[in-house]
Amino acid sequence: MNPNLWIEEKLDDSYGMRFRVTEVLFTGKSKFQEVDVVRTAGHGVMLLNDGYIMLTERDEFAYHDMIAHVPLFVHPNPKRVLIIGGGDGGTAREVLRHPSVEECVVVEIDSMVVQACRDHIPQTSVSFDDDKVELIIGDGVAYVAETNRTFDVVLVDSTDPIGPAQPLFGEAFYRNVHRVLASDGIVVSQGETPWYRQNVQRELSGILHTVFARNHVYNFSNLSYPGGLWSFTFASKDCTH
Amino acid sequence: MNPNLWIEEKLDDSYGMRFRVTEVLFTGKSKFQEVDVVRTAGHGVMLLNDGYIMLTERDEFAYHDMIAHVPLFVHPNPKRVLIIGGGDGGTAREVLRHPSVEECVVVEIDSMVVQACRDHIPQTSVSFDDDKVELIIGDGVAYVAETNRTFDVVLVDSTDPIGPAQPLFGEAFYRNVHRVLASDGIVVSQGETPWYRQNVQRELSGILHTVFARNHVYNFSNLSYPGGLWSFTFASKDCTH
Repeated sequence: MNPNLWIEEKLDDSYGMRFRVTEVLFTGKSKFQEVDVVRTAGHGVMLLNDGYIMLTERDEFAYHDMIAHVPLFVHPNPKRVLIIGGGDGGTAREVLRHPSVEECVVVEIDSMVVQACRDHIPQTSVSFDDDKVELIIGDGVAYVAETNRTFDVVLVDSTDPIGPAQPLFGEAFYRNVHRVLASDGIVVSQGETPWYRQNVQRELSGILHTVFARNHVYNFSNLSYPGGLWSFTFASKDCTH
Repeated sequence: MNPNLWIEEKLDDSYGMRFRVTEVLFTGKSKFQEVDVVRTAGHGVMLLNDGYIMLTERDEFAYHDMIAHVPLFVHPNPKRVLIIGGGDGGTAREVLRHPSVEECVVVEIDSMVVQACRDHIPQTSVSFDDDKVELIIGDGVAYVAETNRTFDVVLVDSTDPIGPAQPLFGEAFYRNVHRVLASDGIVVSQGETPWYRQNVQRELSGILHTVFARNHVYNFSNLSYPGGLWSFTFASKDCTH
């Protein structure tokens, strides 16, 4: 591959992150978004949706450890976990490390993301081969509005509030998440960055504060999202956690 | 200015950080390095040495808060502080917020850095107007080898271990830092990044472990250094802190 091939994600037309690409593994356009998988020179294989970096093999552990293990260790006995989004499989992989977990439902809207990761990123998609994982290709917003099932932990493993993930940042969605959670249930959601998106963080925290008994924000560092420092929101129905 | 002017810092030919530039304020070449000051579209004024980003007005508080306040709050009564490097003035600015501090000596090797910051970055260089600050243009390595003065806290506010800062990462330098520290003295140094430079971190920690009674590493996040997550090393002569 030409050594001058780089892929770039820009922010606000003032900042850009560039990664050198050694191989384009997949590029496609689904009903929802563009999906690309490339091999990078320094960060392993990378998944992009609509040109936004979703993960790299080098640093995905940080995001997936932090979305899954914080709520699953805080909850005293998590058995039923729902993941909204998470089509790469990395969040499910970490959920499955908790022996109390009996079922892990993944509701991913875009089958192309799942297939691209199954084909090129086994490091995360390996979880889809586990019997405890039930993969549903469908709309997570509709799922929490309609399902009769109950969950101990809901993980909103979504992209940013643009494109297909936009409704995942609204109050109607979180009222339904509240509905499908058990009385001591916890929801953790991708929470944007304190460096560049405090307005989105404030809005999301406001919604969670309205719907849930308790809510928090926690941060982590990664290499794939602009600014490096990223966050998750944590909300629970029960004030004891 | 042309809206397509961007400045980029590359890492290992696999990663790049780009910032859009709206004005070039200063560019010069000293005996030690190239010095540039530019105004960016999203991060305020930026200082670069040899093309490496030293600071931006938007996020410099993170670095300067964390290099100064951790040791100055751990030390019970810091009166005399020595800064090696720190020609932008930001570290001294934070040191001066501690009322116990009576003198703050800044030993910066490159007068061009000081002058460029005095001219274009008053946000940090304001500290040089304070009577408690003594600015010495000279070699910090020679200074700690030769001075008869003693300090409670030494802050090594240096660039990376390439170019003029290279000797600041060696054992000989830290033996002299140990010599100029009071018996309960603390030294904190710019400590590179756990994402990309664990080898340098390990080497520096090894040296500190040999020379000092106690040593630690602590992390912080910023926008100007590759990977976002950065560190300081902390070492003390006295095991109580």
